[in-house]
Amino acid sequence: MGALDLEKMEPYDLATTVLPGMGREEQLEFLASLPPGRAAETLEHLRPDQQYWLLHHLPEDRGREVLNEMSSDAAVDLLLSLHPRQRSQLLEWIAPQYQEELRRLMAYPENSAGGLATVDYIAVREYWTAGEAIEHVRKVGREAELVYYLYVLDAQGHLVGVASLREVLLADPRTPLGELMKREVISVPAQADQEEVGRILSRYDLLALPVVDDAGRMIGIVTVDDILDVMEQEATEDVQRLGGVQPVAEPYMEASLGVLFRKRVGWLMALYVAEALTGTVMRHYESFISQVVALAFFVPLLIGTGGNAGSQASSLIIRALAVGEVTPAHVLRVIWRESRLGLALGLSMGAAGVLRALLLGTAGSIALTVGLAQVAIVLWASLAGALLPLLGKKIGVDPAVFSTPLIATATDALGLIIYFEIARLVLGL
Amino acid sequence: MGALDLEKMEPYDLATTVLPGMGREEQLEFLASLPPGRAAETLEHLRPDQQYWLLHHLPEDRGREVLNEMSSDAAVDLLLSLHPRQRSQLLEWIAPQYQEELRRLMAYPENSAGGLATVDYIAVREYWTAGEAIEHVRKVGREAELVYYLYVLDAQGHLVGVASLREVLLADPRTPLGELMKREVISVPAQADQEEVGRILSRYDLLALPVVDDAGRMIGIVTVDDILDVMEQEATEDVQRLGGVQPVAEPYMEASLGVLFRKRVGWLMALYVAEALTGTVMRHYESFISQVVALAFFVPLLIGTGGNAGSQASSLIIRALAVGEVTPAHVLRVIWRESRLGLALGLSMGAAGVLRALLLGTAGSIALTVGLAQVAIVLWASLAGALLPLLGKKIGVDPAVFSTPLIATATDALGLIIYFEIARLVLGL
Repeated sequence: MGALDLEKMEPYDLATTVLPGMGREEQLEFLASLPPGRAAETLEHLRPDQQYWLLHHLPEDRGREVLNEMSSDAAVDLLLSLHPRQRSQLLEWIAPQYQEELRRLMAYPENSAGGLATVDYIAVREYWTAGEAIEHVRKVGREAELVYYLYVLDAQGHLVGVASLREVLLADPRTPLGELMKREVISVPAQADQEEVGRILSRYDLLALPVVDDAGRMIGIVTVDDILDVMEQEATEDVQRLGGVQPVAEPYMEASLGVLFRKRVGWLMALYVAEALTGTVMRHYESFISQVVALAFFVPLLIGTGGNAGSQASSLIIRALAVGEVTPAHVLRVIWRESRLGLALGLSMGAAGVLRALLLGTAGSIALTVGLAQVAIVLWASLAGALLPLLGKKIGVDPAVFSTPLIATATDALGLIIYFEIARLVLGL
Repeated sequence: MGALDLEKMEPYDLATTVLPGMGREEQLEFLASLPPGRAAETLEHLRPDQQYWLLHHLPEDRGREVLNEMSSDAAVDLLLSLHPRQRSQLLEWIAPQYQEELRRLMAYPENSAGGLATVDYIAVREYWTAGEAIEHVRKVGREAELVYYLYVLDAQGHLVGVASLREVLLADPRTPLGELMKREVISVPAQADQEEVGRILSRYDLLALPVVDDAGRMIGIVTVDDILDVMEQEATEDVQRLGGVQPVAEPYMEASLGVLFRKRVGWLMALYVAEALTGTVMRHYESFISQVVALAFFVPLLIGTGGNAGSQASSLIIRALAVGEVTPAHVLRVIWRESRLGLALGLSMGAAGVLRALLLGTAGSIALTVGLAQVAIVLWASLAGALLPLLGKKIGVDPAVFSTPLIATATDALGLIIYFEIARLVLGL
């Protein structure tokens, strides 16, 4: 590939297709040959350990330049992932005032608005004219992460308004920003969760959201492209949690088997311990099974269907909680909805259960037992599936932890008790 | 709430908090009182049936104005959701040239780049200077969905370059766009799937992505805020599919019980039919259970753990497929990884199984049976959980359909056969 092609390539492609094909020395040479801003953008698409290795092994003045060109949110992510000794070394490379800003951002949790914010936004004053503001954008625009919103700050750094570059461009150049700006700025506190940030960006169709501290002073902005990355990451974690896996940071094909084993065996064991209760229940009803072996035939079907019904309810509620459609305050209404739904679904499945039992040639009384048990188990599983995530949310546990495997496991033991107790009543065991 | 407050409110808030509190007549009066652009933005946050009702009942000239102010992607969504008669009525309100553009966009599938595209972008010519381009933005900027990218088209409408407003502002006003623009434009074909569009936007940190037809002519742009909405919608559908629910379009608390019932009962029944196979398997081994009732104690534990292991593997692979980390071409490597992982997990769970059996006071030979069966079942479930979504992808079925409930159900029957066959060998039944 010629030098010309490389010059035109996107930083993402340089990081994901060009660099991986090079040896380490070659990577260093290549990065040193790029303009520092482009080298910084390329680095931002690598893993933190790779970023550090490259910065550390570049000629020091070069490494400094590249680090200072990185956007502040990327620099914060890198610094936070380093060993404290490496971190202080890199921090020394950064100009004192910028260093202070980075230290402030580093204090916010990684998943918060503050942790995602970049300080490379455009700040303007209320008394500037539109023409002056455009001059300012021309001057500082190259450093900024996003030039399309001009944030109006007062002398103490409080966010008092926002003007879009579009409005400023469209206006008469002599108009003061105070007349153009919107005073009702949509902003988030630094502690806001990243999902909340994404929701607000999407709701109000914004390209960036300003982040303020408790006193209303501007800390930085979160841009929509960072939120896209965050949403993809969150979706991955949710799907993995729903499958009963602790979130795995690396791509599946790159994660070591040891990591994948550890992320899976913990939950598998925890669920096993819970599921082991079913053995105790079964043994408790040993005499029932000895007397009517046919009862055992329906155990997998009954509890499997219960698990499926619970998983349906939990997936609906987990997602509704995630997008804010349902809150723990809705608990009574959720109970009322799932009671009716669970009963309707239970009756359908119960009818199927009776049919299945008769088809297997079992006695009518056993078929009746299976049918009644199926109604009760589906009802119970639907309620448990809906309520456990709500409970989790209430007590501050990620609702996605109440994954399908957990719901299935949690409903199995009681499902069996329901089954055998109905058998006792119907069959007179 | 005073008129002043309403004037400052965001369209989203008008649509979600102000309008729902009004009667229909009041809604019409309120919309008629808004500037048409603001009324259009507010409408875009309502459901299509509500949009149509309001447009239809506004004074006709007012309705026309508002409809023509809607962004083209929102107008397309609305038109597509209407009855053909209503659709032609609304189309008549639209200026002929714009009408033609809308008809072209309506031909693309809803989930494709073409279906999401808006035609309200800024088109410029290569020979214009930076200064002329800024003048153009000033003139047409108010109509555009996004003014921050200037798309350079040739006389036939082919997309030949893109310049960011930032670059154009920073440049000398006399520079021709041909010198400022990037000729390697990242674009997508109109048929591209919306997930692909999201991936490209996020990868290259873009605010909008141009959509071109097969001949490279520009059709429109997809903006990042539309993709945020799409990603949220897709995440909801994935979570619901993973839980074994057909995607529900309405929010959980608003969906009717009838809809929720239908979205759930279909899968539940389908899984039931599959799960019913377990009854046949159990009956086939009836004599084993009669001879050694203790064998039945471990059935829920063994197949439950198998289901959990399968669900872990499937959630990892489903997500890796969704983000493009794994493709069906990786099938052999996935088999090799999951064989080793499944074996390691199986051995761990098998050891736990032996322990559990001994704790329940069962004979050593039964404990051995349970342990061996657990190893084999976990191995088999891990492989099935990983391979079924890959197979789905290969044959064009959404991998998320291979949900946890489906994997659990699919692995139960063979899991039981494995268990009883091991029992035959070990116990000599």
